[in-house]
Amino acid sequence: MSILVVGSVAFDTIETPAGRADGVLGGSASYFSVAASFFAPVHLVAVVGQDFTEEHIRIFRDREIDTSGLSHLPGNTFHWSGVYGDDINQRTTLATELNVFREFKPVLPERLRRADYLFLANIDPDLQRSVLEQVKQPKLVACDTMNFWIEGKREALRETLKGVDVLLINDEEARQLALESNTVRAARKILGYGPRSLIIKRGEYGAALYNNHSYFAVPAYPLLDPVDPTGAGDSFAGGFMGHLARKGSLDDSSIRQALVVGSVMASFCVEDFSLRRFLSLRPEQIRTRLKEFGRMTQYTDPT
Amino acid sequence: MSILVVGSVAFDTIETPAGRADGVLGGSASYFSVAASFFAPVHLVAVVGQDFTEEHIRIFRDREIDTSGLSHLPGNTFHWSGVYGDDINQRTTLATELNVFREFKPVLPERLRRADYLFLANIDPDLQRSVLEQVKQPKLVACDTMNFWIEGKREALRETLKGVDVLLINDEEARQLALESNTVRAARKILGYGPRSLIIKRGEYGAALYNNHSYFAVPAYPLLDPVDPTGAGDSFAGGFMGHLARKGSLDDSSIRQALVVGSVMASFCVEDFSLRRFLSLRPEQIRTRLKEFGRMTQYTDPT
Repeated sequence: MSILVVGSVAFDTIETPAGRADGVLGGSASYFSVAASFFAPVHLVAVVGQDFTEEHIRIFRDREIDTSGLSHLPGNTFHWSGVYGDDINQRTTLATELNVFREFKPVLPERLRRADYLFLANIDPDLQRSVLEQVKQPKLVACDTMNFWIEGKREALRETLKGVDVLLINDEEARQLALESNTVRAARKILGYGPRSLIIKRGEYGAALYNNHSYFAVPAYPLLDPVDPTGAGDSFAGGFMGHLARKGSLDDSSIRQALVVGSVMASFCVEDFSLRRFLSLRPEQIRTRLKEFGRMTQYTDPT
Repeated sequence: MSILVVGSVAFDTIETPAGRADGVLGGSASYFSVAASFFAPVHLVAVVGQDFTEEHIRIFRDREIDTSGLSHLPGNTFHWSGVYGDDINQRTTLATELNVFREFKPVLPERLRRADYLFLANIDPDLQRSVLEQVKQPKLVACDTMNFWIEGKREALRETLKGVDVLLINDEEARQLALESNTVRAARKILGYGPRSLIIKRGEYGAALYNNHSYFAVPAYPLLDPVDPTGAGDSFAGGFMGHLARKGSLDDSSIRQALVVGSVMASFCVEDFSLRRFLSLRPEQIRTRLKEFGRMTQYTDPT
């Protein structure tokens, strides 16, 4: 089954303790679609400017990602610039130039409206909802957001969440969205807003799944030499949705597996700048790391 | 097999978003010994003052903890006072009155020198080493410490660590001890200082085990209503050592189980102020939570 992702494609300029990358391919939809493409066919809907070349598009096409939904507008592509501290979890945004992204009004071509799996990457919740209204009976809708929309467009976001099955956010965003200082309590509240499942992304601490009948947590794969955490959350979402689309099942067991696949794809993302690690990644390397991940979490009943 | 713990017994005054407790029983050795007592015989070595009454001692005796190594000195018992923020992970110390703890020079009675399992709670690393020198061929030595000793007595601590099998600290302490900004890299370095295993305590994110041949991580048990995190780390250590002493085995499988038991004992600790939750805790409640913990971490191989 195929996946439709709507989000940003950007050029990023990033500095981390490991080095620097200038104007490299980034954006939530880029990371998501490349990570998901290892598991299922992906259709990308986003907007780019005149500075987005055939060479950039080839990165997606080489991964067999459908770019027919990629609009080209006059002007420059979205550009983001940020710097990470010695503690790689601390990020400072230096510049956000929306450029053509400001004009982004996703109108889906007819054949994309029948997507089975829909990922609404981190964009304006009103745009997320307009996409949601265009897609006919998706099997699964997952969604990301950020503090900027939680603060500035709380009501629009709450409206969007009514149509979402899985929300993926971090601890702080969950507490902010639910106006609760305890994450467990915040999670309970958010499950009352619409989503059947909430995934809390915890960076180097892994991820946790909350739904009405269970709680499940996975660690992050430990990296000796993290290079750049940009896009790790979207790569997680790509692995998560990719696994579900490949299996064609949404039962509890598949969703748990999908969290593990998401964690592993996020770990590869962090190993290099931009999408670089994915470009050389082979399916057997994913399988090897998934097996290793199993050994990191298994124990026998102590009772 | 029995466990010897050397550390502090204190009176704590604590304020958390859930309430306030004045002059309640606390201290690293108290939490450790009560948590461990659910699994194995415990011998407590610590110092208290004249304000420590028969009623306080009964709390230990009721759990069949051997208090013959508890010294009584003229003066008051160690008193600590602290407040936790809305984010219960943020703690501010208001007062530390060492009192008789300043005179603590643990001299072990002959029969305690043959302990199989030794826990050196968070005290001056020179004192930890003096205890280590008094105990004859222990099967397992575990140790805790804190930023105060890492900064102020780095060399003494490094010397102590040469005789330690398992070090239990948090992320920040590990990075500080190894002078490394990446926790995974810090862990590798610390394993070169002496300990065969390093356990990183991550509070609400659980715990991770690093040793030369494997990495293992467990989440924390999610609590809807945490009351007071004081002593959670020592309760973790108590559950950890308790399980190992009960099993009498130090293989990889037992150590992994011990981390799970530690996490579960820490979760009970946080459910009330002081040692209160442990006083009403029944072994079948521990078993139930251990089973529940299993369901929170299990998944089937996604490959």
